[in-house]
Amino acid sequence: MPLRSDWSTKSCPIARSLDTLGDAWTLVVLRELFVGNSRFDGLREELGIADNVLATRLRAIVDAGLAIKVPYGGTSRPRYEYRLSEVGRDALPVLHALARWGAKHSEAPAGVQPMVIACATCGGPSSSTDWCATCQAPLTVENTEWHRPGKPGRPIRLATAS
Amino acid sequence: MPLRSDWSTKSCPIARSLDTLGDAWTLVVLRELFVGNSRFDGLREELGIADNVLATRLRAIVDAGLAIKVPYGGTSRPRYEYRLSEVGRDALPVLHALARWGAKHSEAPAGVQPMVIACATCGGPSSSTDWCATCQAPLTVENTEWHRPGKPGRPIRLATAS
Repeated sequence: MPLRSDWSTKSCPIARSLDTLGDAWTLVVLRELFVGNSRFDGLREELGIADNVLATRLRAIVDAGLAIKVPYGGTSRPRYEYRLSEVGRDALPVLHALARWGAKHSEAPAGVQPMVIACATCGGPSSSTDWCATCQAPLTVENTEWHRPGKPGRPIRLATAS
Repeated sequence: MPLRSDWSTKSCPIARSLDTLGDAWTLVVLRELFVGNSRFDGLREELGIADNVLATRLRAIVDAGLAIKVPYGGTSRPRYEYRLSEVGRDALPVLHALARWGAKHSEAPAGVQPMVIACATCGGPSSSTDWCATCQAPLTVENTEWHRPGKPGRPIRLATAS
């Protein structure tokens, strides 16, 4: 179910991407899936999102092939979690580009640790959205870790979490 | 005038960015400003956007500091064009990340030349949103050129156009 008028047949790949990724809620849901917050209740709690808004976004995310819906638990009422597909994992640079712009051009709340996007191979903070200049290798979900703002503790290895 | 509920004070820089950049129309307007399509009539024609939608986005873009509004011409009726600020130019990797995802995961219309993002210094197509691995240098508006899909002709140097 598309969230806007159809841009999927545009000549420009930016516009075609926006047909799927041009929605703020969709992108913060994807952010949560990258860190392994993959179930409805956890997403609702972290995002403070209305049930119907979250349900619409999760349906759009699955329909677009960004994640798959997997049953979990063994109860009689089926419950699902959402796991990023390769298509969804390939959206990581979009989130990184937004994170870098936001860190540079907006003010974090006082006392909040900044978000750090690091290469898990060399341990260094990244100076690019998708390339580790130290390792001379692409920065992908496989070798990226996030120090999340406002969440002390060990960094999150996206490959393991998502 | 914000386009959505206020995310500008969130701890996460991705969410803070989305307060400004989490709107599909805003991003395609920015795309046009990068290639120098900087006036209301030109934007309306290229984007097929309703006047009120375009006016709202341009106001939000100026209010967020992404572009400045500059008068042009000498007629009695004031007319304006929109020029990207440094804040707006720093959003280039967001567009590049969307372009790369869209090129990989959505189908271009038949017969349309793909978009190519190239480094103007070395002439090579970029394999990153914001880094030229050949030049070992950041890919910014200063050294980026776009071969636009569906628009034959010379590539557009963003530094000159925007």
